[in-house]
Amino acid sequence: MTAPIAVRRLNAADQDFARHLDHLLSWESVSDDGVNQRVLEIIQAVRERGDAALVEYTQRFDGLEVASMADLILPRERLELALTRISAEQRQALEVAAERVRSYHEKQKQDSWRYTEADGTVLGQKVTPLDRAGLYVPGGKASYPSSVLMNAIPAKVAGVPEVVMVVPTPRGEINELVLAAAAIAGVDRVFTIGGAQAVAALAYGTESVPPVDKIVGPGNIYVATAKRHVFGKVGIDMIAGPSEILVVCDGQTDPDWIAMDLFSQAEHDEDAQSILVSPDAAFLDRVAESIAKLLPTMERAEIIRTSLEGRGALIQVADMAQAIIVANRIAPEHLELSVADPEAWLPEIRHAGAIFMGRYTAEALGDYVAGPNHVLPTSGTARFSSPLGVYDFQKRSSIIFCSPDGASELGKSASVLARGESLTAHARSAEYRIKP
Amino acid sequence: MTAPIAVRRLNAADQDFARHLDHLLSWESVSDDGVNQRVLEIIQAVRERGDAALVEYTQRFDGLEVASMADLILPRERLELALTRISAEQRQALEVAAERVRSYHEKQKQDSWRYTEADGTVLGQKVTPLDRAGLYVPGGKASYPSSVLMNAIPAKVAGVPEVVMVVPTPRGEINELVLAAAAIAGVDRVFTIGGAQAVAALAYGTESVPPVDKIVGPGNIYVATAKRHVFGKVGIDMIAGPSEILVVCDGQTDPDWIAMDLFSQAEHDEDAQSILVSPDAAFLDRVAESIAKLLPTMERAEIIRTSLEGRGALIQVADMAQAIIVANRIAPEHLELSVADPEAWLPEIRHAGAIFMGRYTAEALGDYVAGPNHVLPTSGTARFSSPLGVYDFQKRSSIIFCSPDGASELGKSASVLARGESLTAHARSAEYRIKP
Repeated sequence: MTAPIAVRRLNAADQDFARHLDHLLSWESVSDDGVNQRVLEIIQAVRERGDAALVEYTQRFDGLEVASMADLILPRERLELALTRISAEQRQALEVAAERVRSYHEKQKQDSWRYTEADGTVLGQKVTPLDRAGLYVPGGKASYPSSVLMNAIPAKVAGVPEVVMVVPTPRGEINELVLAAAAIAGVDRVFTIGGAQAVAALAYGTESVPPVDKIVGPGNIYVATAKRHVFGKVGIDMIAGPSEILVVCDGQTDPDWIAMDLFSQAEHDEDAQSILVSPDAAFLDRVAESIAKLLPTMERAEIIRTSLEGRGALIQVADMAQAIIVANRIAPEHLELSVADPEAWLPEIRHAGAIFMGRYTAEALGDYVAGPNHVLPTSGTARFSSPLGVYDFQKRSSIIFCSPDGASELGKSASVLARGESLTAHARSAEYRIKP
Repeated sequence: MTAPIAVRRLNAADQDFARHLDHLLSWESVSDDGVNQRVLEIIQAVRERGDAALVEYTQRFDGLEVASMADLILPRERLELALTRISAEQRQALEVAAERVRSYHEKQKQDSWRYTEADGTVLGQKVTPLDRAGLYVPGGKASYPSSVLMNAIPAKVAGVPEVVMVVPTPRGEINELVLAAAAIAGVDRVFTIGGAQAVAALAYGTESVPPVDKIVGPGNIYVATAKRHVFGKVGIDMIAGPSEILVVCDGQTDPDWIAMDLFSQAEHDEDAQSILVSPDAAFLDRVAESIAKLLPTMERAEIIRTSLEGRGALIQVADMAQAIIVANRIAPEHLELSVADPEAWLPEIRHAGAIFMGRYTAEALGDYVAGPNHVLPTSGTARFSSPLGVYDFQKRSSIIFCSPDGASELGKSASVLARGESLTAHARSAEYRIKP
């Protein structure tokens, strides 16, 4: 007999609602000094001793009996083999997902542009892919084939010639679905290493691991801390916080559907956050009943319970307009608009990683197969950041080509401004190009 | 009598050239523990005591006699007043620059897009500006009006409703050109605070300073360290290293022009880096002579000397093809292609912050007035990052609107993949939307 579940209820009309909401949302991820110290040591060792350090750490942390770096390299044929080891149904689902993700991301590709001014001066921007990208894939139970697709495909669509994947195989456990996804996504090289040592190898390179320009993909606190430390030497994606969903419902969706949508977030881990907002108090009651009814049927019931009781909430608002204000305050990673006319509210949404519109668009469809990326800004960072995309694997160079006339004319203003900043060499360099 | 200047000569044909080049380029900026500790204390104090902490730190660090926060706010009228205090020539030059920067950056603006699939499912991306951006402007001699334009205008073009500027005024020194630039760029609010305390105020907000979503702009080691610490709570731009230029010349440009172009980078500070690459050894000699001849005529001769002797180089290569290989290895912030036909080489350039094409396009023109941004990736980070742009002040939200048919079809693949990852709630949430 399971204990009844109690999900927090809030009402936006309450005087201290703002404070309660702030408290509910507060999240600070801190790498303690111990973690920082160990990560710095690992990075230093990999920089100094390369492959030898990778082999030692992999023996120690992943419990692998490896003789040399050669044992930590998976050839392309091994990925192809994985495609034959998964079920036909799984292979087809991966291929459907990859094709849809590819097709959506093609729309994000940016092109170089330029324009010519009246005096012949050309201005523009040249867009190029990174030379090499690194993809971190966690080992063990958080090893998700869908994440391989979501991280590798945008890089390939951007035109990155070489995508290098690292994935630890603790005690030799290999996830065939992950390798199959890597094969389908077009990953070029795979090393079975993980942790801070894998991040260090990707950032600085070793005898075997080529240095990359950017490292993406999720990981535990050691991986996240290592990514923070190598940032600057290479690019990194956002450091992700716990996953969250905000469901806004007008009260007309099947409460079982909404309960399951909340569960789908909560089942990730105990820190995940699922919040439902509705102007219909009776509907919130019905969803609470569905939660109580469905929870005992879930495989991950205890994780879901801890998440919902610790960080979940059912929030009553006066009307849909207030629901949207709450949504913009939260700036959620996932926003489900489970309402009759989501298009009517879309213009009011200012901050969200992904917006799932209408009663049929479950977040789970977006997580796997709809096409948009499932790597999204968490913990309110949708206020200033975006889903992972092709743009993360492209960079821009400004193009300036002054005609002699253009340089002469621009030189005059540049000279005045440079002298106003006491930068005389700047001024004189510009003045050389002014026609007498 | 000034001592003769000796700029390092390298030859790409030498056996240890790669090692010498690596050494020349190596740069690691490290915030020592003392700086980290003081910055963390300042951030904590501003979070806990708000305005009171800002007033205290400003009294202590900027030597200002201020009674309250009211003394640290510059009203819009004060900015307008600055416009009347600068010369007509300066005002015109600022306006020319602002207009060209605005017009170039308009081309970077990105729009929302969507498409509809055969079954009625809609996918797309919604692009929105940040709500509020913070602009850090250094005080003292590194206080550049051109940087105000380059940081504020892209935010305004992106549609950011409120741009908040902070600029310290040590011992009460106010830079009228900086305030005039702020007026012209459309900065909305100005606070005369600086250092880590200003960064903390922008990130967390105080009674007077509104919290922003992203902080951009250069600063000293305390400012850079504070930006690193508040990253995640807000967005930040890249942490800039010393400025650098790589000039590639075919030997046909006036050597005085090239010497002055190298000086214009070297005069920024002792750590700045100026490198010339040419297949013409005699030309390198002529530029060395120009350097020796022109150096004594420069106002910042000692800074230029230290920079050129410490971090500069004249590099001989076999031909232009090798010059481009060296350029891609360096991935310079500024790349000047001072050659007869720069268009011929442009397709080969893979990494550079900005490319200045032809003999007339001095870097100084781009620094002030050409139009492209002068905030560029330094220290080789052009391998994975881009000039500051409108895209830094916009963010994206994925749009997914499944039709009932679309959800039913997608649900089948999502279910297979979710069960492959043991995420049963994801699977069941998708399965609810599958038609019986």
